[in-house]
Amino acid sequence: MIFVDACLKKQTPYTPIWMMRQAGRYLPEYRATRAQAGDFMSLCRNAELACEVTLQPIDILGVDAAILFSDILVIPAEMGMDLEFVKGKGPVFHDPLRNEADLKRLADDSDEKLSYVYDAIKLIRKDLAADKALIGFAGSPWTLATYMIEGGGSKTYEISKKMLYSNPSLLHAILRKNTDAIIKYLLKQIDAGVNAVQVFDSWGGALEESAFFEFSWSYMKEISAAIKAQHPEIPVILFSKGISGYLDKIDGTFDVFGVDWGTPIEKAKAAVFDRYAIQGNMEPTRLYSQEKIKEGVEHIVKVMGKEPGHIFNLGHGMLPDLPVENAKYLVDLVHELTRR
Amino acid sequence: MIFVDACLKKQTPYTPIWMMRQAGRYLPEYRATRAQAGDFMSLCRNAELACEVTLQPIDILGVDAAILFSDILVIPAEMGMDLEFVKGKGPVFHDPLRNEADLKRLADDSDEKLSYVYDAIKLIRKDLAADKALIGFAGSPWTLATYMIEGGGSKTYEISKKMLYSNPSLLHAILRKNTDAIIKYLLKQIDAGVNAVQVFDSWGGALEESAFFEFSWSYMKEISAAIKAQHPEIPVILFSKGISGYLDKIDGTFDVFGVDWGTPIEKAKAAVFDRYAIQGNMEPTRLYSQEKIKEGVEHIVKVMGKEPGHIFNLGHGMLPDLPVENAKYLVDLVHELTRR
Repeated sequence: MIFVDACLKKQTPYTPIWMMRQAGRYLPEYRATRAQAGDFMSLCRNAELACEVTLQPIDILGVDAAILFSDILVIPAEMGMDLEFVKGKGPVFHDPLRNEADLKRLADDSDEKLSYVYDAIKLIRKDLAADKALIGFAGSPWTLATYMIEGGGSKTYEISKKMLYSNPSLLHAILRKNTDAIIKYLLKQIDAGVNAVQVFDSWGGALEESAFFEFSWSYMKEISAAIKAQHPEIPVILFSKGISGYLDKIDGTFDVFGVDWGTPIEKAKAAVFDRYAIQGNMEPTRLYSQEKIKEGVEHIVKVMGKEPGHIFNLGHGMLPDLPVENAKYLVDLVHELTRR
Repeated sequence: MIFVDACLKKQTPYTPIWMMRQAGRYLPEYRATRAQAGDFMSLCRNAELACEVTLQPIDILGVDAAILFSDILVIPAEMGMDLEFVKGKGPVFHDPLRNEADLKRLADDSDEKLSYVYDAIKLIRKDLAADKALIGFAGSPWTLATYMIEGGGSKTYEISKKMLYSNPSLLHAILRKNTDAIIKYLLKQIDAGVNAVQVFDSWGGALEESAFFEFSWSYMKEISAAIKAQHPEIPVILFSKGISGYLDKIDGTFDVFGVDWGTPIEKAKAAVFDRYAIQGNMEPTRLYSQEKIKEGVEHIVKVMGKEPGHIFNLGHGMLPDLPVENAKYLVDLVHELTRR
């Protein structure tokens, strides 16, 4: 698989590409399947429909990898937390974690309750072309913790950070719980058939440097090391958003470093490409304009050259009103400009 | 004034400190004055009450500078846009800017309509101790534009960025309008008595590197150059949040570079301290714990040493539930540890 080879820094005939949130609302086909499923969590829990939306961008765009359709919050949901996706507001936990007792109530067997995910993976892997990779994923322990503690999304993360600075042992206990659950979950995704896994640390950049390495990166590295110890052949991608100030301290046993659009690709390359493959980093809103797509692709391709170890991606997820034809244009252009 | 001297890299007896959003909801005295004023914009438009809340942190905390109490959105409001602060949601413009015609409707004399700000400045400067500086401010052209275009706060800035990539000349026309208004506004603030000015670019970090320099930093530099040409004695502070990946390209005629908590202070010092004074950068949520305040202050003070040119500040604004006694502890500790 071209995608897996690129993750492992092997030669590939061209640079593979996939897009974060490539199965999403910008696709009319996704909106149709979503309407069938009812609410968002019902779509995540329905293996057949999750399979269907996972495969849509492969057929429509021709990307080199599919990413399992799911949500990072299925873990806390299956730990027993009361999750609701509120229209116009996003995810809400009605019973946020604020103390030891709240933490003790959470189930230890979320990895078993997530069997609908493994069912979806088996279906997808059966229907997906043999040369296309299937990427599994989980949220990072810290990113999950912010939702669990705040009770939803946040601008300031102040409840989580108050815990971090005034009761760090409670936060570490929550992160421990999340880390153990994520490792078991990702190992079961691999058993079910995914060809690579990515850990999404959407809110790592909310932390100052010392806190980021203590409360987020250390747990991500632990997850990665646990996966690589059992499955050295499976690429692990770590992606923390908003940490361009911390690149010189990135370490650990993993394969691919995900780069957001706030980190110039030259700097990411200089900081980590000697040790890791790089995935990223085009600004997603360039997809509003084919001219700007071309400019962005040419720049990234020029910087990354044709050395093995680059996976083209956006620096963040697809937005709901991006034109499908521009996403298709991007995929074709990356393939064309990077052919060896 | 110690604050002004530090901005101009002159020797000072100790490192001056003030805090972004130091006049705010964490102070019971602020909440009392705010309740008198009614809504938020009424407080901004009432020179006596704006003076009162501006001075509160000077008396209560002993900071070295007062910052004018106002809001960055007074400029678009006085251009004629329909601004409302909606509880639990933040600022909303009911008539967002989406095309040339919307832009043409905006008034050119916002700087004259903002006379209540100059009245407040005169009152504050009269009541403020002679050794304490008064800082005036404005939002950056880009940051104001995001609110004007999106119609309020945003997570993705997708309408603004769609304009940036698909209709850049319209965005430049909006930025031109904002820049001209900001220059006139800041010059009038100086005429009224402020001793320094800061440009807040809260959402500069939403832009990728090339877009940041073209659509935000270039206009900030233009503002700074215009101020310095007329008032070389007035320090100009430029603060863009979330641009730690772009530090090596920072240039322009200004005095102080504001550093958020996502940029390690060592890196900010290495990148810009040869040319600019530095203001920042303690993580605001450290203020939940005196132990963590001490750790943060000791680190920053150690890195910055006792060379002239550092103004201690937070990397972002004070939060509503931070304890006042911890803010006071921070101010005293910075003064104590930096005494020459």
